[in-house]
Amino acid sequence: MRGNTIGKSFMLTTWGESHGLAVGGVIEGCPAGLCIDFEFITHELNRRKTGCTPGTTERIEDDKIEILSGISNNITTGTPIFFKIENQNTKPDDYKNLSEVYRPSHADFTWEQKFGEFNLSGGGRASARETVARVAGGAIAKLLLQAYGVTFRSWVSAIGPFIIKPIETIPELSLINSSSVKCPDKTLSSEMETYIQQLKTDGDTCGGIITCCILNAPIGLGEPVFDKLEADLAKAMLSIPSVKGFETGSGFEGAKAKGSEHNDIFLSDFTTRTNHSGGIQGGISNGMPINFNVAFKPVSSIKIPQKTANKHGKITELKIEGRHDVCVVPRALPIVEAMAALVLADHVLRNKTSRI
Amino acid sequence: MRGNTIGKSFMLTTWGESHGLAVGGVIEGCPAGLCIDFEFITHELNRRKTGCTPGTTERIEDDKIEILSGISNNITTGTPIFFKIENQNTKPDDYKNLSEVYRPSHADFTWEQKFGEFNLSGGGRASARETVARVAGGAIAKLLLQAYGVTFRSWVSAIGPFIIKPIETIPELSLINSSSVKCPDKTLSSEMETYIQQLKTDGDTCGGIITCCILNAPIGLGEPVFDKLEADLAKAMLSIPSVKGFETGSGFEGAKAKGSEHNDIFLSDFTTRTNHSGGIQGGISNGMPINFNVAFKPVSSIKIPQKTANKHGKITELKIEGRHDVCVVPRALPIVEAMAALVLADHVLRNKTSRI
Amino acid sequence: MRGNTIGKSFMLTTWGESHGLAVGGVIEGCPAGLCIDFEFITHELNRRKTGCTPGTTERIEDDKIEILSGISNNITTGTPIFFKIENQNTKPDDYKNLSEVYRPSHADFTWEQKFGEFNLSGGGRASARETVARVAGGAIAKLLLQAYGVTFRSWVSAIGPFIIKPIETIPELSLINSSSVKCPDKTLSSEMETYIQQLKTDGDTCGGIITCCILNAPIGLGEPVFDKLEADLAKAMLSIPSVKGFETGSGFEGAKAKGSEHNDIFLSDFTTRTNHSGGIQGGISNGMPINFNVAFKPVSSIKIPQKTANKHGKITELKIEGRHDVCVVPRALPIVEAMAALVLADHVLRNKTSRI
Amino acid sequence: MRGNTIGKSFMLTTWGESHGLAVGGVIEGCPAGLCIDFEFITHELNRRKTGCTPGTTERIEDDKIEILSGISNNITTGTPIFFKIENQNTKPDDYKNLSEVYRPSHADFTWEQKFGEFNLSGGGRASARETVARVAGGAIAKLLLQAYGVTFRSWVSAIGPFIIKPIETIPELSLINSSSVKCPDKTLSSEMETYIQQLKTDGDTCGGIITCCILNAPIGLGEPVFDKLEADLAKAMLSIPSVKGFETGSGFEGAKAKGSEHNDIFLSDFTTRTNHSGGIQGGISNGMPINFNVAFKPVSSIKIPQKTANKHGKITELKIEGRHDVCVVPRALPIVEAMAALVLADHVLRNKTSRI
Repeated sequence: MRGNTIGKSFMLTTWGESHGLAVGGVIEGCPAGLCIDFEFITHELNRRKTGCTPGTTERIEDDKIEILSGISNNITTGTPIFFKIENQNTKPDDYKNLSEVYRPSHADFTWEQKFGEFNLSGGGRASARETVARVAGGAIAKLLLQAYGVTFRSWVSAIGPFIIKPIETIPELSLINSSSVKCPDKTLSSEMETYIQQLKTDGDTCGGIITCCILNAPIGLGEPVFDKLEADLAKAMLSIPSVKGFETGSGFEGAKAKGSEHNDIFLSDFTTRTNHSGGIQGGISNGMPINFNVAFKPVSSIKIPQKTANKHGKITELKIEGRHDVCVVPRALPIVEAMAALVLADHVLRNKTSRI
Repeated sequence: MRGNTIGKSFMLTTWGESHGLAVGGVIEGCPAGLCIDFEFITHELNRRKTGCTPGTTERIEDDKIEILSGISNNITTGTPIFFKIENQNTKPDDYKNLSEVYRPSHADFTWEQKFGEFNLSGGGRASARETVARVAGGAIAKLLLQAYGVTFRSWVSAIGPFIIKPIETIPELSLINSSSVKCPDKTLSSEMETYIQQLKTDGDTCGGIITCCILNAPIGLGEPVFDKLEADLAKAMLSIPSVKGFETGSGFEGAKAKGSEHNDIFLSDFTTRTNHSGGIQGGISNGMPINFNVAFKPVSSIKIPQKTANKHGKITELKIEGRHDVCVVPRALPIVEAMAALVLADHVLRNKTSRI
Repeated sequence: MRGNTIGKSFMLTTWGESHGLAVGGVIEGCPAGLCIDFEFITHELNRRKTGCTPGTTERIEDDKIEILSGISNNITTGTPIFFKIENQNTKPDDYKNLSEVYRPSHADFTWEQKFGEFNLSGGGRASARETVARVAGGAIAKLLLQAYGVTFRSWVSAIGPFIIKPIETIPELSLINSSSVKCPDKTLSSEMETYIQQLKTDGDTCGGIITCCILNAPIGLGEPVFDKLEADLAKAMLSIPSVKGFETGSGFEGAKAKGSEHNDIFLSDFTTRTNHSGGIQGGISNGMPINFNVAFKPVSSIKIPQKTANKHGKITELKIEGRHDVCVVPRALPIVEAMAALVLADHVLRNKTSRI
Repeated sequence: MRGNTIGKSFMLTTWGESHGLAVGGVIEGCPAGLCIDFEFITHELNRRKTGCTPGTTERIEDDKIEILSGISNNITTGTPIFFKIENQNTKPDDYKNLSEVYRPSHADFTWEQKFGEFNLSGGGRASARETVARVAGGAIAKLLLQAYGVTFRSWVSAIGPFIIKPIETIPELSLINSSSVKCPDKTLSSEMETYIQQLKTDGDTCGGIITCCILNAPIGLGEPVFDKLEADLAKAMLSIPSVKGFETGSGFEGAKAKGSEHNDIFLSDFTTRTNHSGGIQGGISNGMPINFNVAFKPVSSIKIPQKTANKHGKITELKIEGRHDVCVVPRALPIVEAMAALVLADHVLRNKTSRI
């Protein structure tokens, strides 16, 4: 039983290898009657593209989506929505010299151990190339959620050691987008950009943190006791390549607080004065903004030579060529949102059977 | 579609309400031929019991498990393993005065919004009482994993503001168990204990962090691309009541590092010099120890009076009586391990079909 | 991955062995707010009991159901409904002499091959004892379906070689119940009864056919393309012990017809003049009565001595003692209806997400 | 929750509409390391093609399969296998005059009721065009099963009123293939052919019965208690368009027998003297040939004018044009085998976790 499907009611299965002909997905469970805005899907795919943010890979893809089923006259028909995005800019030669060595902190070793030698990680599913299908699927989930008024807002809150100060209000989209690294703090944004440029020169890489807010989610989403909303969000985020941490509401910082400081007091309209719960109580959305942080480790493909073992256990020097990102965090905003949208869409449908 | 089942191949469904007659579970998918050590299950249940650690609830339960199917002469038969643990010490009267008010940071409001007024949270599934079924199910998962040599080691690494210093080696079990709060740092342990006692006096509560290590996990566990091992662990942890954060390997701290610092260099035996990956690469276990941290928010049932809204939106003063923990973190070690064991057992079985 | 759960949205998992302490089930996914009529559940369990129809086993069980979770003040709460029915009248000694021989057309051989020697079929899940949990779960499914006006009517249409003539109208319940073998044709009914009594004297057994009608099912149930309503009904029926065949609408007989004879012409109210489709078109219910036949093979436990192989491959004479039915068909009516109700309840819930 | 996926471990999802651009599927769960014989897949697709058997539709498709992922150098990699077959010969104009009328015994009415007016059945999933994806997926399942020695043999045992006599031995493949209607009885075969030609002249259609044998299936396949092997086969068969009945082993005829006649006596090598059980006992394969019959109703698209209701409930005369089969039964052999192969492949993988 592999794990290429996410969701129980609104389900996305992705398929395709980075250096194969195409990647894509199938959505099963999208209700009939949803109007599909193709420009919006393209817009989401463009947000993920390289080149928009500093230090991103030179592999440029058109990322033109083809939808081959499930939609008629721009309306979903209730049948599986199949889509495909061609890989145009593959350079498998870049990976040739890697066939004899396991790249550090990559998936080469583990994939080979699991599936045998048939998987070249460079040509495989472990590549971030696969996430384009998540963004496409997530865009359709977002269109479904729009019917419920749900919107998403995410930004970069840390790049390497540069970390945003706690902010009180959700930043404007224009402020986020005016930053090349998608960080709403202007000073920090320019420090981050400089840092990334320096790493590029050095052949090094970095990670960071993304903060995501889900606004206007209906009350009642999340399924006790294992499919709590925060549990499904955590899984969705940790399934993104390079993600090492997830926290919601007060998160790790909240573990230091006292109950008397941390409790979210109900006001007379059943909103809460604070939102340490992050919009989720007992695993179920409570109508407040749902918010969470996602930690990305630094990109493992560095240009600095590394001494590591080859497949025969001999220590060799590895020099990774190819086209790689210095920092994927700004490009990952639409991926984080897409995964969140897939979770929310799934729970909106699942919630339809909570009461008779 | 509710969410009371976890796992796809080794599956646990829990059932039962805190103030009902019993709680329990059904395990579906446990292979035939596994020898069941009942003493071990009891031992795990005892680790979760109140009274062993300071500041825990006065609701004491025997937690005697009855297994009614799936086992014959102490050997699993391949059929569903059903178990039941009676609730002996229920005091529903403690919850009577709560019927008119939503307790802050509790599940009262969200459960009622989702399912209607039929759910009394105090008598419901949102209570930590449900976790006894997780520990029982997890104990059976651990027995399955023992056949593969997998072991678990977890400890408390923070209580409120008291946080352990980074440690190089996995602490001995005896060191952990000699601490009343299950923290292997002796000085810190006694500060934590004092802190908890003070909170108890104040009627306040606290949270903390648990660190968990999984040792000797087979290489190859985890299913690309959505059911990555860390993704399923994250979900399992965030499904535990009060958990707000999860990080694996270098986690949030790792987001600050450079790639050249963070990469785990392979040695000639295919172990890695460092383990920033936390034993998982590309979503698949690599043979190194799997480790992660879990953040618990402070307990929401405080004895200090709180001003909050009642069900009619009127601001009232709430005084929570009943028997509640000041700090659940030390008691939660077996819960964290149980959830990890359920995930690992599921992936061990799923991995059996990875190759022809 | 075992198969002890049926349904995707309204899910029943059964557990328990025939000669263990109890059998039971867990329903996951039943919406909150459904009023549970315990008398109705008992009534359904009683319909399945032995003794009501001729030639049934002398193993008499109280079949008193205990519901331990998921219901509060007779209303479902949206949490798992767990129930348990004790086995009071077990006589494992009856099976002692069977431990060395595989009973013909029983599950002894295949269960042992699959799961090892830990399963005694007589004490196992293959026994029809397990179906009591299906009837209990199905009774709750029926209560859910009552809210939609759905009702069930089933009868015995064949016992051994005695086969009912094609009938035009659905027989009255009173007519069915006035027959000891639940056959609405009075003459045939008494012939069947005589036949069963003769077989009992001979130590032999027989099978038969059940016809089931589902009335007032909502239009639109059934999920293309694999979970067609008739596909899920077929699976549910073939999962009942001893069932060897399923046909819906015109069934095997319809394979002989011409299209011009077989097509169901729509009338101006969108009902159809004939119902060769059996109430299902393209896998989806069309508002006409859903009807199907289920074929049961003769009971394999005969008292006539049989020459067969023991576990060492030696041919021996087997004489089955114990308490066994001559004919299970009349007792199986509530089982067939229960399985149909489980399928319908699942599809009613699944259909809630067909349109935006 | 739609139902476009079959299988729990070896899973096929099909997608695509008859008059869209393409149809296809995604296989999830195929183990890594399986050698893919593309010629075999093409061979299976060709068996389903029109033109090979009398009275089949004039819509001729190339049915060239493109596999875009999951296979590298002809070996499966353990990742999703995505495939696509273009629709080249679509004539949506044939369906234009149907937009105002519900064709009798078609899926037009039920699909519209379920999903709204967005689905044109002629351009939809209800068309037999979808089954090309089943045959492609089934071909890969067959390749997996070849590693276990499993083979399939199926033939036409009835066309309209022409029904084969009970046969003792499984007919040779050459005998089946030498018949234009795939019936191993030569005399009957030529009568069937004449019958189909006459119906074509009349503008009428017919159905029939397919018998399928699965040879050399491993002992132990099938999962108690709901996913019995015969239950999953029944579901798979009833999910094929036009199928109205399924019986295994002695089937409906067996319901007439006595237990003493019907029991399959074990021989000293643990085969059985007779095979009334159809190779399955207690839901689990016993090593004997697995056999079953599948009943197909007559094709509903007849050229004879029919009086039926239009969408406004007015009775009108309908004359169906377009390209339709007189009899699909001979073409359906590879579909029946494909569905059986999908079920068997799924159970082979599921059985890997039956014992520790």
